[in-house]
Amino acid sequence: MDIAGPARTQVNGPAALNIAAVAGTGESLRMKSFRKELWFEAPQRRALMNITPDVGECLRESGIREGLCLVNAMHITASVFINDDESGLHADYERWLEQLAPEKPHHTYDHNRTGEDNADAHLKRTIMGREVVVAVTAGKLDFGPWEQIFYGEFDGRRKKRVLVKIIGE
Amino acid sequence: MDIAGPARTQVNGPAALNIAAVAGTGESLRMKSFRKELWFEAPQRRALMNITPDVGECLRESGIREGLCLVNAMHITASVFINDDESGLHADYERWLEQLAPEKPHHTYDHNRTGEDNADAHLKRTIMGREVVVAVTAGKLDFGPWEQIFYGEFDGRRKKRVLVKIIGE
Amino acid sequence: MDIAGPARTQVNGPAALNIAAVAGTGESLRMKSFRKELWFEAPQRRALMNITPDVGECLRESGIREGLCLVNAMHITASVFINDDESGLHADYERWLEQLAPEKPHHTYDHNRTGEDNADAHLKRTIMGREVVVAVTAGKLDFGPWEQIFYGEFDGRRKKRVLVKIIGE
Repeated sequence: MDIAGPARTQVNGPAALNIAAVAGTGESLRMKSFRKELWFEAPQRRALMNITPDVGECLRESGIREGLCLVNAMHITASVFINDDESGLHADYERWLEQLAPEKPHHTYDHNRTGEDNADAHLKRTIMGREVVVAVTAGKLDFGPWEQIFYGEFDGRRKKRVLVKIIGE
Repeated sequence: MDIAGPARTQVNGPAALNIAAVAGTGESLRMKSFRKELWFEAPQRRALMNITPDVGECLRESGIREGLCLVNAMHITASVFINDDESGLHADYERWLEQLAPEKPHHTYDHNRTGEDNADAHLKRTIMGREVVVAVTAGKLDFGPWEQIFYGEFDGRRKKRVLVKIIGE
Repeated sequence: MDIAGPARTQVNGPAALNIAAVAGTGESLRMKSFRKELWFEAPQRRALMNITPDVGECLRESGIREGLCLVNAMHITASVFINDDESGLHADYERWLEQLAPEKPHHTYDHNRTGEDNADAHLKRTIMGREVVVAVTAGKLDFGPWEQIFYGEFDGRRKKRVLVKIIGE
């Protein structure tokens, strides 16, 4: 599992900052929602990328101080999860996921009869999870000491997206 | 894993639409919350059902345009997850989950000494996950190209529930 | 997996109750957010603790009636998940997790070359999940009949934290 320097781009979503909600009497209210897509292109089939700084930047852009931050893979062969930024652990993940849901032989999976070769990526993403929800407190991602957000790519070599949605105030 | 036409009913929850929040000065505010239970009865022990249209209908009923939508199994032998609506993949899931947490022999699980035979269903649901949180943007479930919400039943042949809770504005 | 009477303490977080949001015209609004840390110290390496009463008490303190309640492990070798409070099932979890991600031999994991011995705990927590999001309806945790929230400790014998964050009204 290669974690060295994947290509990485960011694209603003269609509604980057949306301050809305109208009281019955017409006053505008400070309930905010923020949306942004993060785009990634892993040069290998599988990669783990620490996207904590990207999500932190979204939170700063949003101006939201208290709320919840959803970060999810928009593709079903990729994952967003929280764990440690330690290269040994990442090597352990690679070995472990290959044990639990081996990539090959491709023909052992019914899904691959559709012309795909990525059935294992659907299963690996299932183990690792689609999404995380992170508390936002005092304008920061409210994390324990070692929590870092990762994008887990299991069928890379093409542009794929992560959605960041923050609601609060 | 049978995915063909399980019986499916919908029942309104006790507080189907709840527009609330009162400002300190007494004006009502447009922060909304919506709740609905979806009921399912799988005719087999295990089944995967695409419930995306049901959740989409909840969102339309709610009138919420920006927020978060929680969809969770209310039973601990069932799952709500997001993946592909492809029958080959669903067959792969069935085989894979039976490898990781086989149903039989029933007596290998301590939980089954209580008179149950569904210990494997608790473990399968653990792999697949209890819930998903989906962003709501411009009144739509904010999905990538292939994301579909599934109810995963691992101990069926009886009525069971999924909770949809949406908050936002 | 020992589930008998782990040491358990609660500490108020820095912003235990935070009623905020200001309308454009200056009125205060009843969108609330609540934060609290729950601290646990398992006397064994691995333990499952039912924290449903602790989370329920947070909800009562918050005064929130409609919203979402996030409960997450703040440590990456621990889990928060929802399942059954049945001792046989908990023994099954212990055996099953040891099959999927055995603790020993420690040297089989690259992560343990860093001086740690807890690589398995990172993997076990991955299976069990970091967090749950629970609907809040009419001031209650909106649960199905058997849902209970657990703290899953996989590298215990020290103080560790769970974050409860509730937003709503």
